[in-house]
Amino acid sequence: MATPEQIRTTVDRYIEHWSQGDRAAWLELFAPHATVEDPIGSDVRTGPAELTELWDLVHGLADRLQLVRTGPTRVAGHEAAFPMQALTVTGGTELVVDIIDVMTFDDAARITSMRAYWDASEMRVREG
Amino acid sequence: MATPEQIRTTVDRYIEHWSQGDRAAWLELFAPHATVEDPIGSDVRTGPAELTELWDLVHGLADRLQLVRTGPTRVAGHEAAFPMQALTVTGGTELVVDIIDVMTFDDAARITSMRAYWDASEMRVREG
Repeated sequence: MATPEQIRTTVDRYIEHWSQGDRAAWLELFAPHATVEDPIGSDVRTGPAELTELWDLVHGLADRLQLVRTGPTRVAGHEAAFPMQALTVTGGTELVVDIIDVMTFDDAARITSMRAYWDASEMRVREG
Repeated sequence: MATPEQIRTTVDRYIEHWSQGDRAAWLELFAPHATVEDPIGSDVRTGPAELTELWDLVHGLADRLQLVRTGPTRVAGHEAAFPMQALTVTGGTELVVDIIDVMTFDDAARITSMRAYWDASEMRVREG
């Protein structure tokens, strides 16, 4: 089983690669048949081709995307959950939304599944 | 389906009743066949008798228990996740641990399942 430290490293890389726009590095964090449900209630995407599609869709909509972890990553066995805020910049408008991602991991600390708790209706213009 | 506001109210009552030691009010937040896995990896408890057992076990170990939500409750459809810190006071020692709970809800915003992301090995003496 992956150690808590390895799992926390994968989570931090996930946030980093997503925010820096490094799609290839982001895809490498997933196990081959990983599933992603983002947000919960949307279609589940499986494997690299569908994850690439999701990446391109989301990154294509924004000029800049940034994830910021807002608390510690909680690890329980081979699962983890962490709170974050997502910032989306599109043509001068900055929107934020609060998200919690939950993930499962394989023995190499690769992501085998991800589910994201958030709702598009909760996106709001960033203040300050 | 329960509204996000109803779901957030259930979450806040859950935290409040747990912290105030009001077992009866806490039990009423659950649907009849609700399941609880706390922490993830432990036995799943089902229904009021087993939830009562869990309550008595945890509350019996501590002089005082307090949950504090540390960020907004993220709602997605009939599911939600929220970050918190749990404080356990036993004989003058104050221990804290970071937790994320994920829950599903029925149409009346009663909890149908709960899973808690945390690990006993992460408990630490509270500073300050």
